[in-house]
Amino acid sequence: MIATLSAGEGQPVLESLRQEFPFLADAITDYALGDVWARPGLDHRTRQIATVATFAALGNRPYFKIHAGYALNLGVTQDELKKVIYLTTVYAGFPRAIDAAQALRELFEERELEGH
Amino acid sequence: MIATLSAGEGQPVLESLRQEFPFLADAITDYALGDVWARPGLDHRTRQIATVATFAALGNRPYFKIHAGYALNLGVTQDELKKVIYLTTVYAGFPRAIDAAQALRELFEERELEGH
Amino acid sequence: MIATLSAGEGQPVLESLRQEFPFLADAITDYALGDVWARPGLDHRTRQIATVATFAALGNRPYFKIHAGYALNLGVTQDELKKVIYLTTVYAGFPRAIDAAQALRELFEERELEGH
Amino acid sequence: MIATLSAGEGQPVLESLRQEFPFLADAITDYALGDVWARPGLDHRTRQIATVATFAALGNRPYFKIHAGYALNLGVTQDELKKVIYLTTVYAGFPRAIDAAQALRELFEERELEGH
Amino acid sequence: MIATLSAGEGQPVLESLRQEFPFLADAITDYALGDVWARPGLDHRTRQIATVATFAALGNRPYFKIHAGYALNLGVTQDELKKVIYLTTVYAGFPRAIDAAQALRELFEERELEGH
Amino acid sequence: MIATLSAGEGQPVLESLRQEFPFLADAITDYALGDVWARPGLDHRTRQIATVATFAALGNRPYFKIHAGYALNLGVTQDELKKVIYLTTVYAGFPRAIDAAQALRELFEERELEGH
Repeated sequence: MIATLSAGEGQPVLESLRQEFPFLADAITDYALGDVWARPGLDHRTRQIATVATFAALGNRPYFKIHAGYALNLGVTQDELKKVIYLTTVYAGFPRAIDAAQALRELFEERELEGH
Repeated sequence: MIATLSAGEGQPVLESLRQEFPFLADAITDYALGDVWARPGLDHRTRQIATVATFAALGNRPYFKIHAGYALNLGVTQDELKKVIYLTTVYAGFPRAIDAAQALRELFEERELEGH
Repeated sequence: MIATLSAGEGQPVLESLRQEFPFLADAITDYALGDVWARPGLDHRTRQIATVATFAALGNRPYFKIHAGYALNLGVTQDELKKVIYLTTVYAGFPRAIDAAQALRELFEERELEGH
Repeated sequence: MIATLSAGEGQPVLESLRQEFPFLADAITDYALGDVWARPGLDHRTRQIATVATFAALGNRPYFKIHAGYALNLGVTQDELKKVIYLTTVYAGFPRAIDAAQALRELFEERELEGH
Repeated sequence: MIATLSAGEGQPVLESLRQEFPFLADAITDYALGDVWARPGLDHRTRQIATVATFAALGNRPYFKIHAGYALNLGVTQDELKKVIYLTTVYAGFPRAIDAAQALRELFEERELEGH
Repeated sequence: MIATLSAGEGQPVLESLRQEFPFLADAITDYALGDVWARPGLDHRTRQIATVATFAALGNRPYFKIHAGYALNLGVTQDELKKVIYLTTVYAGFPRAIDAAQALRELFEERELEGH
């Protein structure tokens, strides 16, 4: 599952935690990714867009950026991600929307996406 | 737009604000619903699911319930809403997920949805 | 100080805490009201408006309402309080602004303020 | 485990969720209570005090009250719970500490604890 | 308006967003700065102090620093900004007040304010 | 008190604030450390574990790390700190738990703790 999201880039964060915090790494693998993400019933694109919207509203910029990258891997478009940011202005205010916009621009630049 | 979401039930909150806070009511109508919600580019079901996920994670139970109701009006299924709550356990912890689950049960009961 | 803010209505919350939590009641009286509020250097109207804006943005509706009442006692106008709510839409999003607007309307009704 | 915490009063919240949200109820039972709470390595009194402090600081009054009750069941004293509230003033401000103090007073009254 | 706040230093953040997120940049210009900030009824010094207090309490250190700088541009004194930080200890706890104090010290150093 | 927590390393943050913000430094010394921390009734290890849990749940990574270091100074074990992080997954979600785990690993590395 996580391999699909991360497009085969591996899970450096998860692996770096496993030696020191094996229980946490197992909980992520078994509960968060296994029980929750692997459940059918909500298509992956929608789920990933909901995740991206959540981290934007919570003001968690690093997780927003990671999950926006996963969203692109799943075929979510740049334009859809921008629309999520406009929603953020309404639900959580402009500062969190601007933070998310800046993270998204970094992501687009790193991936050398055209027209960004 | 809001009429679609609320299935014609009107907007008592919005109207009650208009007399005392006309600027706020206008901002909701013109900016939040007009500029943001009316923009194309993210289909309404996905957008509403993202909104529901956001309010669950923020711990805003009243808005979660209102928007979960809008989601049902747009054809989002009960099962999809439950999946959003499972995501909430991962991103914002169990207490906020349990709060959202209780709000969702109230909503299902009010609508007398079968099998809830 | 608190007597000025509360216009002589007394401090039922504070007094109800004193028997069970004397340390907390003393900290409120000595530190929060004594050391912080009693310090010169920021006029009371400005300070109270800043406090009201803070509780609106934090989503703490009960404290917003109490402090909006103190603000009225200090001569802050209804219109100034409404402007604080418009700022809240920008800094913390529409749901928290709408919550604060509803609390403000309750306060105006309780005080039977004309034209509210 | 939960039976110990709740002193045999049962788990109405958990049971009421099980019919509608079996996955969530299972996650609470298997992950939150099974994997996390049942792990050795941090004694139950300390863990419960940490939990109570967390909910006070997060401003989650209902969960604070439930877990303060569990703490009493585990032998945590009224005085220790009051000290947690004094810490809350430092780490999360006076409004959240006052909210927690009010919840604690309700709890002491419900249990008819002497000298509260 | 923004030119007044920023003392003619331009708006690099806003301009950098405009190419990629024209809707967001327009919303900031038209709604946040146009409709909200340009409205009469709350003098600019008071409004800016309220904004600074809000970002201190929300724990948004970068926005706190930007807006504290705008406050200085509008004639708010260093001492008034320090008083805002003392309020923050009461409403949001010491960690957020200390963070804001450190940001304020950086700002004073950058502006080479005497006696800071 | 603070000397005990910091194992004699001094208080660079506190001292750097004293010149510019003497009131804040005094409030930390007199109220936070003097009145709150110096009070008897909750043993220091338990209190420090509660503090660490609080900062993990609030998502305040720098304060989490500082206070986890104080906890080690007081004899709290590495394993007890890891258990706090597992609790965080339940009460505040996985992202905040993972952030705290990464901060804890940095701390263990800085102290060259074996077996971390």
